[in-house]
Amino acid sequence: MKKKSSETAILPAGFLAAGIHCGAKRKRKDLSLIYSEKPCTASALFTRNTVKAAPVIRGIAQIKRKASLRAVLVNSGNANCMTGERGLKDCEKMADSLAHELGLKAGEVFVSSTGIIGQYMNMKPILKGLKPLVESLSRSGVEDAADGIITTDGFRKISSRKFMIKGRQVTITGIAKGAGMIKPEMATMLAYIMTDAVIDKRTLDKTLSSATDISFNAITVDGDMSTNDTVLVMANGMAGNERISGAGVSAEVFRKNLAAVMEDLSGMIVRDGEGASKFIKVNITGARTHKDAKKVAESVADSLLVKCAIAGGDPNWGRIASSAGASGVKFDPGKMTIKLDNEVFFRKGKPVPGAKRINSPVFKGRDVKVEVDLAEGPGKAVFYSCDITTKYITLNSFYTT
Amino acid sequence: MKKKSSETAILPAGFLAAGIHCGAKRKRKDLSLIYSEKPCTASALFTRNTVKAAPVIRGIAQIKRKASLRAVLVNSGNANCMTGERGLKDCEKMADSLAHELGLKAGEVFVSSTGIIGQYMNMKPILKGLKPLVESLSRSGVEDAADGIITTDGFRKISSRKFMIKGRQVTITGIAKGAGMIKPEMATMLAYIMTDAVIDKRTLDKTLSSATDISFNAITVDGDMSTNDTVLVMANGMAGNERISGAGVSAEVFRKNLAAVMEDLSGMIVRDGEGASKFIKVNITGARTHKDAKKVAESVADSLLVKCAIAGGDPNWGRIASSAGASGVKFDPGKMTIKLDNEVFFRKGKPVPGAKRINSPVFKGRDVKVEVDLAEGPGKAVFYSCDITTKYITLNSFYTT
Repeated sequence: MKKKSSETAILPAGFLAAGIHCGAKRKRKDLSLIYSEKPCTASALFTRNTVKAAPVIRGIAQIKRKASLRAVLVNSGNANCMTGERGLKDCEKMADSLAHELGLKAGEVFVSSTGIIGQYMNMKPILKGLKPLVESLSRSGVEDAADGIITTDGFRKISSRKFMIKGRQVTITGIAKGAGMIKPEMATMLAYIMTDAVIDKRTLDKTLSSATDISFNAITVDGDMSTNDTVLVMANGMAGNERISGAGVSAEVFRKNLAAVMEDLSGMIVRDGEGASKFIKVNITGARTHKDAKKVAESVADSLLVKCAIAGGDPNWGRIASSAGASGVKFDPGKMTIKLDNEVFFRKGKPVPGAKRINSPVFKGRDVKVEVDLAEGPGKAVFYSCDITTKYITLNSFYTT
Repeated sequence: MKKKSSETAILPAGFLAAGIHCGAKRKRKDLSLIYSEKPCTASALFTRNTVKAAPVIRGIAQIKRKASLRAVLVNSGNANCMTGERGLKDCEKMADSLAHELGLKAGEVFVSSTGIIGQYMNMKPILKGLKPLVESLSRSGVEDAADGIITTDGFRKISSRKFMIKGRQVTITGIAKGAGMIKPEMATMLAYIMTDAVIDKRTLDKTLSSATDISFNAITVDGDMSTNDTVLVMANGMAGNERISGAGVSAEVFRKNLAAVMEDLSGMIVRDGEGASKFIKVNITGARTHKDAKKVAESVADSLLVKCAIAGGDPNWGRIASSAGASGVKFDPGKMTIKLDNEVFFRKGKPVPGAKRINSPVFKGRDVKVEVDLAEGPGKAVFYSCDITTKYITLNSFYTT
């Protein structure tokens, strides 16, 4: 199941990155930095959880006032959440101190935190780590940066695309962290996407929303939504392409490549779900609308009983039908068709004679497919999920994440 | 964790019951019958799942036309769901055949099924079993009936209350099945409640709704909602009390006792959650409204990460705050207080100095308490849940339920 990113890590023009062990965590890298030589247009989406971590509260305000960004600082080990005024001050202090080190304004520094909730930050190792962190910035530091943001992840997550916009090469590169607590409702993990494209803020905002709908908002690991989830895109314009603005061919090319990077990253997050052994693609067709299809897809992808059945390789399609029905979306089960790994088990409202019996082994591969056609309309949606194994329970029962 | 019902099984006047092994399942009892000497006023609530089993479709129509009932037939092993026209015919055939055996009309027989989804009924053993089932009807048959409706349950569930209505003794007795796939949104299991009270239909309907809100709709085991969930109350009037109608003291006494029986049964269902080792009471206070409080309570009670933390005895109150925030209800985390098993970990927006550290063992008993005060208003709600252990995953991965 564990799959290292096969992408070569290439940063877009003008970006540098670094990741070090500053000592907030016992061993692994715990402090990451992304730096751009030129100011970046930035768009971001944040968790919808009512309980928001200090850096999320700060980040929302920063993006709202359309700050242009030069650097992103991420610590792992402590989420700086439920830490009140002191948490906000600590977050501001991180931005200030890094800005000082880099000769920037604090408002140009974006901060994120991930790790345990409800403990005050141990600021000493972080502040002490800023100097060596800045000193180690390099074009090849993206892997270190990707390592520094992960917590319970099994592998680093990086994806890159190069493409042409009217004769100019543009690069998009993203890093992410995921594992437990992944749920749609926006963000639901950390992802930082860098590009050298020239693009206006409104177009970047719109593109990010649409790419999120089919990537980070179409995955689920355990149905929990975190307090720190953040997706940030920064564009520094150093590719020198003709400005991407509004709709049109260039915007569409950019959107496709941004979506591809984000789908790569969100796919890696699901594949790396805590304790997961299988990667599940839930494909819903024939719903009345896309919205209906997405609701059904999420309900199936999120069902604990479906995840258990798939972990056990059991074609228990009754659980799939039941979880589709539990979505609240209205459809006629008498028209439904259910296909698992290309074998039809239920066709137009009837169990298929001769289909494998419940408890026969199916889902033998690592990648499994669940397809449901509701035969009610043109709506369709895809959702990605992973199975749940005893390892997930053990990981989350005995270790604080 | 397993706790046998300590109630003495007493049936209300005029009720008989039976439960036998007819052969639909390999070994355990699989066919149950409740019979009333006099016609019963009946109220019921059913699953809101779009995918409804054949007996649920039949039952909804029966209750809608205000049928008076004389008998309830329940088979376990097959849910008769996703079985189309043939399923509806099989269900009707069960009612017809039993009615014939008992000298009733088919419309006076209520039918339920529980078990696997998506397989046609094996009618032979059921139809053959009706004669011996009827022959074994007795006043003391309620335990057998309670045994005949369970599937993966660890113990039978029966609860009883005797009380006075204006000088007349009235009895309410209920049996239920639960275990996996328990989620609010109505019913979420099977429950049959018998009473000899004289009560009018409207008052019975209203009382059932209000008692369900604090019992079967306030529990969760794994967040899945079944296709067959049914709560049925039957009143045969044989206690001869002054008719209970509208509001007033008698209606309130009846409501309290019905709610007590239903709380007993729903509590047993949670305690018997598949693989569960702890019984969790989530108590939310200080929400703006009861509805808000219930949403927050459900979100906390349903969170996989919270359930895992409690299984491991870890006071990871950050997960509790996060799951409260994920409910979508708006509140100020800066005013929140979180108490676990009577120890305050977070008070009015601040971690409590000196509180047990995350990963210290808490939740040592079988019954654990999670209390959250939002300090936003008068709304409060209680939700019951159980922890999740590796045993749940094993049970549901390798056996079809």
